[in-house]
Amino acid sequence: METNRRWVLARRPKTLVSPADFRLEEVPVPAPAEGEFLIRQHYLSLAPVMAQYVLDGGTIERPVAIGETMRGRGVGRVVASRHPKFRIGDVVHGPFGWQDYALSNGARLTYVSRYAGRIAPMSTAIGVLGITGYTAYFGMKLADPKPGDRILVSGAVGGVGSSVGQIARIMGCTPIVAVCGGPEKAATAIHRLGYDSAIDYRRGALDEAIDDHMPDGLDIYFDNVGGATLEAALNRMRQGARIILCGAISQYMADGKPVGPSNYFKLVYANAQMKGFQIYAFADRYAEAEEALADWIASGRLVWQENLLEGLEIMPKALAGLFEGTNVGKQVVRIAPETAT
Amino acid sequence: METNRRWVLARRPKTLVSPADFRLEEVPVPAPAEGEFLIRQHYLSLAPVMAQYVLDGGTIERPVAIGETMRGRGVGRVVASRHPKFRIGDVVHGPFGWQDYALSNGARLTYVSRYAGRIAPMSTAIGVLGITGYTAYFGMKLADPKPGDRILVSGAVGGVGSSVGQIARIMGCTPIVAVCGGPEKAATAIHRLGYDSAIDYRRGALDEAIDDHMPDGLDIYFDNVGGATLEAALNRMRQGARIILCGAISQYMADGKPVGPSNYFKLVYANAQMKGFQIYAFADRYAEAEEALADWIASGRLVWQENLLEGLEIMPKALAGLFEGTNVGKQVVRIAPETAT
Repeated sequence: METNRRWVLARRPKTLVSPADFRLEEVPVPAPAEGEFLIRQHYLSLAPVMAQYVLDGGTIERPVAIGETMRGRGVGRVVASRHPKFRIGDVVHGPFGWQDYALSNGARLTYVSRYAGRIAPMSTAIGVLGITGYTAYFGMKLADPKPGDRILVSGAVGGVGSSVGQIARIMGCTPIVAVCGGPEKAATAIHRLGYDSAIDYRRGALDEAIDDHMPDGLDIYFDNVGGATLEAALNRMRQGARIILCGAISQYMADGKPVGPSNYFKLVYANAQMKGFQIYAFADRYAEAEEALADWIASGRLVWQENLLEGLEIMPKALAGLFEGTNVGKQVVRIAPETAT
Repeated sequence: METNRRWVLARRPKTLVSPADFRLEEVPVPAPAEGEFLIRQHYLSLAPVMAQYVLDGGTIERPVAIGETMRGRGVGRVVASRHPKFRIGDVVHGPFGWQDYALSNGARLTYVSRYAGRIAPMSTAIGVLGITGYTAYFGMKLADPKPGDRILVSGAVGGVGSSVGQIARIMGCTPIVAVCGGPEKAATAIHRLGYDSAIDYRRGALDEAIDDHMPDGLDIYFDNVGGATLEAALNRMRQGARIILCGAISQYMADGKPVGPSNYFKLVYANAQMKGFQIYAFADRYAEAEEALADWIASGRLVWQENLLEGLEIMPKALAGLFEGTNVGKQVVRIAPETAT
């Protein structure tokens, strides 16, 4: 009987996630019951918001229980099936958790990928051709860009941000300005991800930096970070600007009460809007996003950026590492080679 | 030669407006040059936002200079004219300042009223049939209400709020819940202004109060106050909720840095939007608002609520008094009887 390795939550962290909060277990690989199928996972997704799944007082979704397999999305192939719609060999992505094998009944956020593993590596099913890419796509739809709109994107080389800038270009925005940390990321933003220029937030003086890169202000700000960057963007809005709230990495592991933008009332002076969204609200339109993203990839207008780590063992450390701001592109962990069965 | 009395700014207040910041002057009534006309004012408007015109560090519009006539809207009749479009006897409202007589060239936010002084008292040209009413009208348009939408309104018996609840009813919202200070205002909200129920914010525990009055949460929050009320409303949003930012009286005279909503990220979980607006952005649609408001008044669906004070002398004291939260309805000061010429 084969072994399934899985990471479970060992204790509930207060304000920072650390590897010691998780425990690796080995259990037998389960067999699917009627209406279920078994996935052998190849890649697991990591995103800053996942800290909220385990933190004491996390504000998003149901917290992972002590002893429960850590929640997270992954992609793999169906290796056994007693479900009519999921067949052996299908590439599926879903909330399969931090483990080698997962059972699913196909309900809730589990999808067969039509393009990942064909026009792009299987890993893109948890990146540009999965929920991460859909988030960039529908966030930009919500921003309602007009040709010539000036756009600022924070977390610009992260999982979502690395597609946002390119989609903004496809939609006719200009200039497309990145906010990211450090010269290496800035170079990636400009030379690989289609940004016109990049602001290194570590150098401070964000308001002035935005003035330098966008002297006429901004029409769209796509926010993945919150905090001081959000405040600076609010200060530089043009009339009718749209602020798209996607993430708030600066707040996910903040001590104490999160900080709201003290200048939120600038929305009044600028006749502007702040729009929040969760990608799950667009679930009935995922096929639209998948088709568009695949078309752009096939025509060379959209490239993806992954930061690939190896091995299931690294998961807790890799999650904590996201908050060190070192990853460029979507953080993906390969837990089995694509050729493995 | 007749005398024009006018209030000028005597010194710039730091954080609180007080009567000693203004000085009453007497000067001759001016005569209109070619292209100008002279207005004898009858009513002057007061609104909390006017504190921002004079405060050190006020964040809205150009500050009033020391020695300059205090800015503010008023309504009166044209008593002399060398302007082709403004005739003697016209009821006009505009930014005429705190004075008995004003010269105007008709530019910038000066309008002839078609209904104030006919279907309703002249004073409504600076209330429900003027910018204040237009603000309620377009704010509710921006809220995009659907029949059955649950709406919460703060500053519910103030100048704007006293029309918002009634317009919400006309647009099919239910329930329509007021937030206001004290039992007298609550009674006015319910018995005169068409609210279904009222929350007295002075009793605290706003989150729980909203639960009591709107157990299913809110679809629209019309914000005139900011601060703790805004935070409570963000905590009680339904999916797809709209937060309309109109005013922030709790912040206009706050010491130190204004406070942003620490829970702004709830906009993400609720797929919700926060929309700011300045009424001047709708200037090309004021006629639409005036017609709709006049129709509703004529058909008895919209009543107005004024808090009338007497005499130009009272203006500085009345402005400071707005922040004591005692006024019910639009704050209006009569400086000359309607029959005066």
